[in-house]
Amino acid sequence: MKALYAQSGGVTSVINASAYGVLDEARKNGLEIYVGINGVTGILKEKFLDANDLDIEFLKYTPAGAFGSCRKKLKNDADVEKLFEIFRKNDIRYFFYNGGNDSMDTAWRLQLEAQKRGYELKVVGVPKTIDNDLPHTDHCPGFGSAAKYIAIAMMEAAFDLRSMYVDSTQVFVMEIMGRHAGWLAASAGLGWINGIGADVILLPEQPFNKDEFLGTVDRVISQKGYCAIAVAEGLKYPDGFFVSDMGFTDSFGNRQLGGVGFTIAGMVRSELGLKTHVAIPDYLQRSGRHIASATDVEEAEMCGRMAVRYALEDNYGVMVTMERVNDEPYQIRYSSVPLNLVAEQTKMLPKDFFDKYAVTDKFFKYALPLIKGEPYPPFRNGLPEYKLLNLK
Amino acid sequence: MKALYAQSGGVTSVINASAYGVLDEARKNGLEIYVGINGVTGILKEKFLDANDLDIEFLKYTPAGAFGSCRKKLKNDADVEKLFEIFRKNDIRYFFYNGGNDSMDTAWRLQLEAQKRGYELKVVGVPKTIDNDLPHTDHCPGFGSAAKYIAIAMMEAAFDLRSMYVDSTQVFVMEIMGRHAGWLAASAGLGWINGIGADVILLPEQPFNKDEFLGTVDRVISQKGYCAIAVAEGLKYPDGFFVSDMGFTDSFGNRQLGGVGFTIAGMVRSELGLKTHVAIPDYLQRSGRHIASATDVEEAEMCGRMAVRYALEDNYGVMVTMERVNDEPYQIRYSSVPLNLVAEQTKMLPKDFFDKYAVTDKFFKYALPLIKGEPYPPFRNGLPEYKLLNLK
Repeated sequence: MKALYAQSGGVTSVINASAYGVLDEARKNGLEIYVGINGVTGILKEKFLDANDLDIEFLKYTPAGAFGSCRKKLKNDADVEKLFEIFRKNDIRYFFYNGGNDSMDTAWRLQLEAQKRGYELKVVGVPKTIDNDLPHTDHCPGFGSAAKYIAIAMMEAAFDLRSMYVDSTQVFVMEIMGRHAGWLAASAGLGWINGIGADVILLPEQPFNKDEFLGTVDRVISQKGYCAIAVAEGLKYPDGFFVSDMGFTDSFGNRQLGGVGFTIAGMVRSELGLKTHVAIPDYLQRSGRHIASATDVEEAEMCGRMAVRYALEDNYGVMVTMERVNDEPYQIRYSSVPLNLVAEQTKMLPKDFFDKYAVTDKFFKYALPLIKGEPYPPFRNGLPEYKLLNLK
Repeated sequence: MKALYAQSGGVTSVINASAYGVLDEARKNGLEIYVGINGVTGILKEKFLDANDLDIEFLKYTPAGAFGSCRKKLKNDADVEKLFEIFRKNDIRYFFYNGGNDSMDTAWRLQLEAQKRGYELKVVGVPKTIDNDLPHTDHCPGFGSAAKYIAIAMMEAAFDLRSMYVDSTQVFVMEIMGRHAGWLAASAGLGWINGIGADVILLPEQPFNKDEFLGTVDRVISQKGYCAIAVAEGLKYPDGFFVSDMGFTDSFGNRQLGGVGFTIAGMVRSELGLKTHVAIPDYLQRSGRHIASATDVEEAEMCGRMAVRYALEDNYGVMVTMERVNDEPYQIRYSSVPLNLVAEQTKMLPKDFFDKYAVTDKFFKYALPLIKGEPYPPFRNGLPEYKLLNLK
């Protein structure tokens, strides 16, 4: 029985730990395991890697998608036809797809089509997203490490700002990933548990009120002299218009959509007359394996293992989930949910996790266990010793 | 005999290690030691902190300026007059100023004025700058840690890009600090020692040729499918015009000067038709103490200690320097240089440290010892346990 694993969607610093979990568990259980290169994009070209004898230790500490990822959505019947042709030809009977909302849609579609075609295929989704927006799971592998990265980045930047504000920059803005949900932006407040963090957090869940925001910054400045701001890229006005719309067209007449961080800083600069600095960590926040969370790495691996176990128990057409059993001491239980309940759904930050521009105790209780522990990668020459697979 | 220590200019993740060196060495040698809050800006307001019994352990691992920094230049005679009044009143006889080019100018001015006035004052500069552009020293405390941060950020981003390029983003651009010299941007190439780094590095030392640059990106893309670009904020056209000039005015008629990273990405997008991502680490690169270099932390502390020793040996009016004795094994010797030889000078990246868009073996030999070792800060709640002093 052949099994196929593949990665899909935006990568994380621990998606390879899930790959490790799937591959190791599959091999232990006697499955013949292959990896599809670049998700369904590569599978459609029969780009497979034989993982049965592959040295997989490096997956535990190497960030991003070691086997390549893809952005492809399965919208096209010809693609589905081609995929089943390839599955059949290679006798693929298990498919473990590691991704977020869109990828679970692909997984669900394949499971349905297999049933329709009478082709025996067991599909199990392995959750992955720094956005933490998959429903029916307490949280997602990838989020804890990205949250830790953001929390630390904001702490360090706030220390910097605090050094400089007396006669220089008074406002620091960090633009954080999250087009729909504010889980990551909220994490910029976690540093307060150790004494410093974001003073103002702008979430997609809360419609942006410019005057109120500027009033708040002004108040923070008059109280402490400086203000550290976290803004989610998906921040919207009450009418749903993205704040990141830069408000002008370029010389080619194209509407400029750009860094919401610069838009926010521009407001502060022009309306409050304060000097600003802007950081955009971009990829750094989702591939910062050097400062990953140990909880996240362990859970990512376990989600991979559970996917294999569920498939072998004939629990398929599902995605692996985590249920929170207890906050302190932190305890979770692995479970599963039908793929169709996850596909293309988005879990927003609950209303009681934030209060205007700050995060609440409930958010701290929720998020702090997820960022715990420092599973440093090995270093050589003063730099992480990540490993590159040849994918050609 | 009273001694005063203060921090000045843009901060680093190890400037507090220098503070630790100065304070500890001063106390061991029986000096009464005070700290000026926010450099000369606070000293002018007599904002002193008695550091004789202060618990200073936290300085070894807390980033940014624990005592506040400033951007003030001493251009004004009234300020100089006021400073000497305050020095005299408090019987300050040693002044240790921790900063970069501008700060050494201030230190030099104070040393000169003291002599002119017949006021016995021993001024010693402690070098500090992530830009690494102070002359007469092999390198500067602060650079090694920032270089390590940049090297790792670029490695991790390149892993991310490599996962995504097949059907999504093919070009990643990281904007790196350095208005004059390209030391930090060059560090984005260091990851190659472990297999991955920046494919194209744009330095202020090399006038920007747009066509040649785009041709190079095009070639890299056709060879490997993706291209990771590092660009220094000070990148200039051959006529000295900053590339970061965005080429348009805002609705208020102001010329937009903005992220050179976005400018470069815009060229790639519009001329080569490739999807891009842009990261701007900003403050994160200079305060990222969580991934500092052990060599840098140790040397920062020693530079602080040497400043005190030199002053006590009557070697003053100088800045502490480091001379490279050997590359492998790495060995340096501490020395000193008259402040006037450092003040307002800039050390550029030597021509044999780069070749077009890449760094040379000479740069690796120079920089690799400086990023070695991982002196992790203590962690609590999954986050660094940095300490905040009350400066009010």
